[in-house]
Amino acid sequence: MLGNFSYSNPTKLYFGEDSLDYLNTELPKYGKKILLTYGGGSIKKNGIYDAVVDILKKNDNEIVELPGVMPNPTSEKLIEGCQLARKEQVDFILAVGGGSTIDYAKGVSVGAWYDGDPWEKYYLKMEEPANRIIPVGSVLTMVGTGSEMNGGSVITNHAQKLKIGHVFGEEVYPKFAILNPKFTFSIPKRQMVSGIYDIFNHICEQYFSGSDDNSSDYISEGLMRSVIHASQIAIKNPEDYEARSNIMWDATWALNTLVGKGKSQDWMVHMIGQAVGAFTDATHGMTLSAVSLAYYRTQLEAGLPKFVRFAKNVWDVCPDGKSDRQVAEEGLAAMKRWMEEIGVSLSLAELGVKEEMWEGIAGATFILDGGYKVLTKEEVVQILKESM
Amino acid sequence: MLGNFSYSNPTKLYFGEDSLDYLNTELPKYGKKILLTYGGGSIKKNGIYDAVVDILKKNDNEIVELPGVMPNPTSEKLIEGCQLARKEQVDFILAVGGGSTIDYAKGVSVGAWYDGDPWEKYYLKMEEPANRIIPVGSVLTMVGTGSEMNGGSVITNHAQKLKIGHVFGEEVYPKFAILNPKFTFSIPKRQMVSGIYDIFNHICEQYFSGSDDNSSDYISEGLMRSVIHASQIAIKNPEDYEARSNIMWDATWALNTLVGKGKSQDWMVHMIGQAVGAFTDATHGMTLSAVSLAYYRTQLEAGLPKFVRFAKNVWDVCPDGKSDRQVAEEGLAAMKRWMEEIGVSLSLAELGVKEEMWEGIAGATFILDGGYKVLTKEEVVQILKESM
Repeated sequence: MLGNFSYSNPTKLYFGEDSLDYLNTELPKYGKKILLTYGGGSIKKNGIYDAVVDILKKNDNEIVELPGVMPNPTSEKLIEGCQLARKEQVDFILAVGGGSTIDYAKGVSVGAWYDGDPWEKYYLKMEEPANRIIPVGSVLTMVGTGSEMNGGSVITNHAQKLKIGHVFGEEVYPKFAILNPKFTFSIPKRQMVSGIYDIFNHICEQYFSGSDDNSSDYISEGLMRSVIHASQIAIKNPEDYEARSNIMWDATWALNTLVGKGKSQDWMVHMIGQAVGAFTDATHGMTLSAVSLAYYRTQLEAGLPKFVRFAKNVWDVCPDGKSDRQVAEEGLAAMKRWMEEIGVSLSLAELGVKEEMWEGIAGATFILDGGYKVLTKEEVVQILKESM
Repeated sequence: MLGNFSYSNPTKLYFGEDSLDYLNTELPKYGKKILLTYGGGSIKKNGIYDAVVDILKKNDNEIVELPGVMPNPTSEKLIEGCQLARKEQVDFILAVGGGSTIDYAKGVSVGAWYDGDPWEKYYLKMEEPANRIIPVGSVLTMVGTGSEMNGGSVITNHAQKLKIGHVFGEEVYPKFAILNPKFTFSIPKRQMVSGIYDIFNHICEQYFSGSDDNSSDYISEGLMRSVIHASQIAIKNPEDYEARSNIMWDATWALNTLVGKGKSQDWMVHMIGQAVGAFTDATHGMTLSAVSLAYYRTQLEAGLPKFVRFAKNVWDVCPDGKSDRQVAEEGLAAMKRWMEEIGVSLSLAELGVKEEMWEGIAGATFILDGGYKVLTKEEVVQILKESM
């Protein structure tokens, strides 16, 4: 924990099979008029929508509907939500869905009472909110992004081919998150494994950086082992409550700032993945999985001690009689076998990337300097090529 | 994460070499009159007292002094503090010290405005506060108890030979905690290692319980590995900032409720250790270390899978060609070697326990049922005997 930092996280979590009941505890703390935002309507099929609306009605809440949040919420959709929230003067935003819906709710939260273009202010210029912020709460139905307990919000502008994430401060964190593992049972397996890889990669982005011997890295190793183990059970039986509940909890702690405290971080896999997402609209977690191995191979030599530690402490690679390089490579090989086992994408071509997009994607990739070796644009192109 | 639960933790942490400066951020949030409580005066020798008072004066705070908090704060001292806080109508309690001082501050926080005997209400009867609670903040100078980010408060009544911990709700958690690893450099090595074992045991108490395969156990394993590693550096060089900062952070997360979420817990080592403490006034962490191995041997058979996992994931015991029992025993043997290496007590006799106390200590031990095998009073006597 060499760094100086502060930690606090105001989000209250309600976890378990009965957790939706706690909406009754939380709703009375805010005003009566609720902006209810959600995605494509799957919550109407699986009963979650009815259960939520039932509680809202019993609490005499007035509901303003804002459906249709897409997997990669767009700047146009953001403006639509901001206008609606302001026109209706809602008191609270309840996001029912996965990370996209919660990310979107945060954008509306800070954008509704801003007089200009929220995309430009918060995402393109990365400015902080100075206007009224509408409080947000969430009912999680898909896990991965950790958006339920952080300030992160990713919005995509297709015209500009940009997918940008802004990490807002505590005042934008959801006030509460309701985490019922059973609500995640009905999502398609491909979405589940995409979320699982997103979780794993969040931990990697914070882990593969810095040479210090940090408590956060030990916590990360524990979380990675938990994700790996639970995913192997969930992939065989998606309705294994214990495995799905562990994955849900891991997702929250993978990206609520804890495991990054006191250390540097990388985030280049996310930068490349988000650029891929802006060009293809592919599922977020799959864009990360497709480019991860090629990216980490660029980091292996400069970050060798951490890759050796990763191999030993996360993948139980036995170091006896092997060079550090061999141990490190066995770690990445074990990671690849696990990725194949759970079925995440290892191919950008599969996600719709074509050779003629490489230059554009590399140009849209923000190059960060937290990793062991800072990339050039040419190296990003090379990673894309190797990830096809 | 099989269990249903809620999680939130309102304590704000400021970590690092410059963290005391944040007193300037926090103090203005509360009233002007500060009850400044601390221990035996070591903070006057190492400069921390002067630095704190300097900030209080610059913030125009009125200081009410409450020194002399002893390592195991007594019910008499509690009443003294409650009377002073009430008479002076203080707005805020600032605890500068280790777990004892913060535990004590919490007792004063809930006791000052209670009209009866705070020992009887909060500790003997374990009741919840219904009166005004004075907010508490802390500047940590010794690590171990995790009291800086939880609601725990342990008070000792010597007349009744009882040492009782009450875990209060969020409203009693410190509002903030200032964690500067350098503030822990000057404490004697024996206190340092006692704190280290206290941290390790907090994790064990939450880990060695339940057969479920819980994310919390994975996080616990990461934290245990971090404590072990950092302690081995700190014992050689107590001024290794990185090691001491990792230990400080591990202590907070070992007992701020995170690693116990969704699972059962044990806490029998603490129950026996606290009874020993009530009879001998021995240092808390040392009472735990002295009885731990004998206690865990009583649990090993019934909790074999968890002890096997502990051996493999925490101590890197190789399981090849060994029975589960052998692997589990090698784990406890590795733990014992580590305890010897860092120099915690493995003998109750050394702590002042005499044979004639065994019955009394066993009688004063609260028997809990969270472990793999619930003890009888006779088995507690046997543990004490084996721990001499």
